[in-house]
Amino acid sequence: MTDIIRPTLVIDKEVCLRNIEKMAKKAKDYNLRFRPHFKTHQSTEIGEWFKTRGVDAITVSSVQMAEYFARNGWNDITIAFPLNILEINNINRLAANINLNVLVENREAATFLSKKTTHKTGVYIKIDTGSTRTGIEPSKTSLINSVLGILAENKKITFKGFLTHAGHTYSARSTNEIFTRHFDSLLKLRTLKQRYLPDFPGIEISIGDTPSCTLCTNFTGVDEIRPGNFVFYDLMQQNLGVCNFEDIAVRMVCPVVAKHASRNEVVIYGGSIHLSQDSLLNIDGKPSYGRVVIKQNGKKKLLSPRNYVSRLSQEHGILKVSQKNFQHFQVGDLIEIIPIHSCLTANLARKYITTEGEEITMINT
Amino acid sequence: MTDIIRPTLVIDKEVCLRNIEKMAKKAKDYNLRFRPHFKTHQSTEIGEWFKTRGVDAITVSSVQMAEYFARNGWNDITIAFPLNILEINNINRLAANINLNVLVENREAATFLSKKTTHKTGVYIKIDTGSTRTGIEPSKTSLINSVLGILAENKKITFKGFLTHAGHTYSARSTNEIFTRHFDSLLKLRTLKQRYLPDFPGIEISIGDTPSCTLCTNFTGVDEIRPGNFVFYDLMQQNLGVCNFEDIAVRMVCPVVAKHASRNEVVIYGGSIHLSQDSLLNIDGKPSYGRVVIKQNGKKKLLSPRNYVSRLSQEHGILKVSQKNFQHFQVGDLIEIIPIHSCLTANLARKYITTEGEEITMINT
Repeated sequence: MTDIIRPTLVIDKEVCLRNIEKMAKKAKDYNLRFRPHFKTHQSTEIGEWFKTRGVDAITVSSVQMAEYFARNGWNDITIAFPLNILEINNINRLAANINLNVLVENREAATFLSKKTTHKTGVYIKIDTGSTRTGIEPSKTSLINSVLGILAENKKITFKGFLTHAGHTYSARSTNEIFTRHFDSLLKLRTLKQRYLPDFPGIEISIGDTPSCTLCTNFTGVDEIRPGNFVFYDLMQQNLGVCNFEDIAVRMVCPVVAKHASRNEVVIYGGSIHLSQDSLLNIDGKPSYGRVVIKQNGKKKLLSPRNYVSRLSQEHGILKVSQKNFQHFQVGDLIEIIPIHSCLTANLARKYITTEGEEITMINT
Repeated sequence: MTDIIRPTLVIDKEVCLRNIEKMAKKAKDYNLRFRPHFKTHQSTEIGEWFKTRGVDAITVSSVQMAEYFARNGWNDITIAFPLNILEINNINRLAANINLNVLVENREAATFLSKKTTHKTGVYIKIDTGSTRTGIEPSKTSLINSVLGILAENKKITFKGFLTHAGHTYSARSTNEIFTRHFDSLLKLRTLKQRYLPDFPGIEISIGDTPSCTLCTNFTGVDEIRPGNFVFYDLMQQNLGVCNFEDIAVRMVCPVVAKHASRNEVVIYGGSIHLSQDSLLNIDGKPSYGRVVIKQNGKKKLLSPRNYVSRLSQEHGILKVSQKNFQHFQVGDLIEIIPIHSCLTANLARKYITTEGEEITMINT
């Protein structure tokens, strides 16, 4: 930590391992395949932490990420993003070497895949259970039938089941609403599974979001969970009631470069290219780009929400701090920012260090 | 262009060169040193385009960026970010090899610099002319005097003058307001220059923002301009009235992966990790993350603001499109997104290609 001279994403490995173990245990307890989403950390070293906890199947969000993890020994990968037909050659190359699953949600992609697939490939049909981002609405069974018919024309393709990302749990206004949305999502998927099981024995249900996977306890009919964010958690999850502060495994450590007493502002080296621009509404009704942890009398202290990252430009972060706390910031101090959305912060960081000083590389290090 | 299979930032080199030449000519016409900010493109190849237009002094926003450009032959660099005292060893190493300028805006950093500077270093005092981000308010001459006194204790340090970034031109509601803010900023800096010139002959005024440098024609007393964004421009500048669409030199080319007719939405491979999360208010009162250009009958067509990037997640972009235009999008098409803020989009891209297919590397390629 004392070697840090510029914005650096620091992982508390102990917290991270605890998050992994908890989720792995939960999956085991509920008899679910644990296929964690690796887009959050994008790191082969962190991947190894999962491997030692029994994980051998993973989820990624791009073909490039699949290629990176395949190069690093992972051989059972689901690309949880609607099939990009322009990457078919890369997909076929991957499928030649590993167990690969892709997502289809329309006839066009299914037709292309059916014509061009050269190696054994698993296909999930992406279902929209309410997030209205991607996927087929569960009531559109004639579209599902049509897609299945198209896929059946290529014997190298195996229909694996129905997959969803109930991303609308992220906008829930209470943990109760997370439960409701998860349950509603489950109901829709189970109905589909029951309908198609006679024709496709062995088809599965795969669900994914961190809020449901962390909080919920009803997984009837589910075969696989794919949470990603839980490995680090963040302020968004804490704010949703999904985790506590002590479960958040990453912090952006930033140098203080200036103080402006007339407006109780502290300038840090740490801007939108370090923290990302995701925000939460702060208690004063303004956007917050992160909470602040400082060292006081040799001890770390999470400051109240009256002290927060209030503005970002490319390399600058502006902290609004209380009158009382202003004196505790000095030019040259290293302070810690708890990120709003750890996936995006990690993507920008390009590498990590652990609290013990171990360097951790990523896909783009 | 036809080789693109995933989100790719494409530069129109011709437009880019025209932007560079225009600004270089303007600087020459007004007898100003042109010290462009390279944080926008972060590329040594694009740096060469400037070199051939007579540029030999540059601005960067971090020590790492200064090191990158110094390694690539640039030997006159200003780091336009408040001195981060934790990077003093890197700064001294740089100053041993090139003409380096740094920014100081408080006694603490000045004291540290005065004690630790081992090689000839130029220092600008950062002045806050109204953006209230960083810098000393121009009326605080006792603080300026104190900083100058501290810096004078180290003979290796040369006080170069006053530098500002009138970032509040970005929030102007009209081009007239840009003129007013620029003029006000200038007045403050000129007053300071006149006050300190007797004691520091040769001190300079350095100003920086793209809106002022592009639009304004009064540079009395200014010695140097440091615009950066103008090299690419973007929707934010177009929206401010600073540039036209045809001046925007970069576009994120993205594959279409899905269509949802029930809500006139098109899903592209291109999310917050490609476009960045900066937004502008669209005509329907909702945030827009980019405008859309498609190919129709072999010709490129900028669609109306009724067709725009309405939502982003990590890898997905959701376009809201008009009923009429919905049919023009097909799965597998490549479409172009004009970015809101090209600096952040370029920072995420990590590399470019030109419209002629030339690959352009960046600091983190």
